[in-house]
Amino acid sequence: MKRNQLRLYLVTDRALAGGRDIEDIVRESVEGGATMVQLREKDIDTRDFIELALRLKKVLAPYGVPLIINDRVDVALASDADGVHIGQSDMPYAMARRILGPDKIIGLSVENFAQIEEANSLDVDYIGVSPVFATPTKTDTAAPFGLEGLRRAVEMSVHPTVAIGGMNASTAADVISTGTDGIAVVSAIVCAASPRKASEELLEIISKASS
Amino acid sequence: MKRNQLRLYLVTDRALAGGRDIEDIVRESVEGGATMVQLREKDIDTRDFIELALRLKKVLAPYGVPLIINDRVDVALASDADGVHIGQSDMPYAMARRILGPDKIIGLSVENFAQIEEANSLDVDYIGVSPVFATPTKTDTAAPFGLEGLRRAVEMSVHPTVAIGGMNASTAADVISTGTDGIAVVSAIVCAASPRKASEELLEIISKASS
Repeated sequence: MKRNQLRLYLVTDRALAGGRDIEDIVRESVEGGATMVQLREKDIDTRDFIELALRLKKVLAPYGVPLIINDRVDVALASDADGVHIGQSDMPYAMARRILGPDKIIGLSVENFAQIEEANSLDVDYIGVSPVFATPTKTDTAAPFGLEGLRRAVEMSVHPTVAIGGMNASTAADVISTGTDGIAVVSAIVCAASPRKASEELLEIISKASS
Repeated sequence: MKRNQLRLYLVTDRALAGGRDIEDIVRESVEGGATMVQLREKDIDTRDFIELALRLKKVLAPYGVPLIINDRVDVALASDADGVHIGQSDMPYAMARRILGPDKIIGLSVENFAQIEEANSLDVDYIGVSPVFATPTKTDTAAPFGLEGLRRAVEMSVHPTVAIGGMNASTAADVISTGTDGIAVVSAIVCAASPRKASEELLEIISKASS
């Protein structure tokens, strides 16, 4: 994984998609510049999850954009996705690495500074600093890092970082100015009238803020 | 897997356990004669699922009773369980076999005769004929096979069979008399005042009916 593939990281959310097809949202977002896609699904049959992952892989292949599966190492294996993103209540990192092998991307959510220190001792591919701001998308999250917390997290981490939680056109410039490698966006793309335009706009903000 | 390990197959259900510890129910049931245990969990964090599987493995090891994980190939890999049980909406069999390798047990639920024919062309270790009777434990099931349907399923199948759905002390003798290798029991053990005594009683009925 290249560090700049974290710049604009789309995380899917079927509930927020409001009946629109996840494939269409992903395609549009990638055409608009998204650099990585995480398929996040809860309450879905394993078979449907795998089939959706296989469909998204086909969508992403022409763009060279990696497909990351949230939580489910089995779905990542079955669909031969590019990797998994795991949280602190998912499979422990060492087990996931053993099962997936050295070549798959494994991202790890960290919710506090102790977890960043722990991640520093692991060969994870990136960490997701979560949440930076309070967000309605996930309600089971820890206290937000805030911009100063994110800046400190970026300094502490030996791994590339992506900022999660409350990422949108209003917050992106300040977030990128902390030095983080990218932003992980859910509702600002998934709920947008045009996921393509929303992605273009976010990527422009990111490019300006990081230049 | 030996065919007689299907004789009394316990399937866990946390909701039916009513706050009692799954580990205790499993230990008691195995002491009472259960020959195989399937850990079935929905709505549980992956990490908790893995930890519970690892605890059950320790409980079962001294008895040589296999631990089977429902649906989740990732949990089976992480915990090095003896195998998985998959349904028609779980990971397709060929994918599960490829990921788990030739030595793990893979059981497949079949809900009609066409699925039994399909299973005959696969190297599954056993099939679960489901449901034999209507049952309140699972509400998303197909039309029941009934005793005559089960008898036909047993004749058709090239694989060992275990009967699922409505298995208890009242039905076990008739079910075993169809020639099926065993019964998969949920509430008749999980909800019993003494899972040990319930298991002993069921095993006695099975032994008498199959002799």
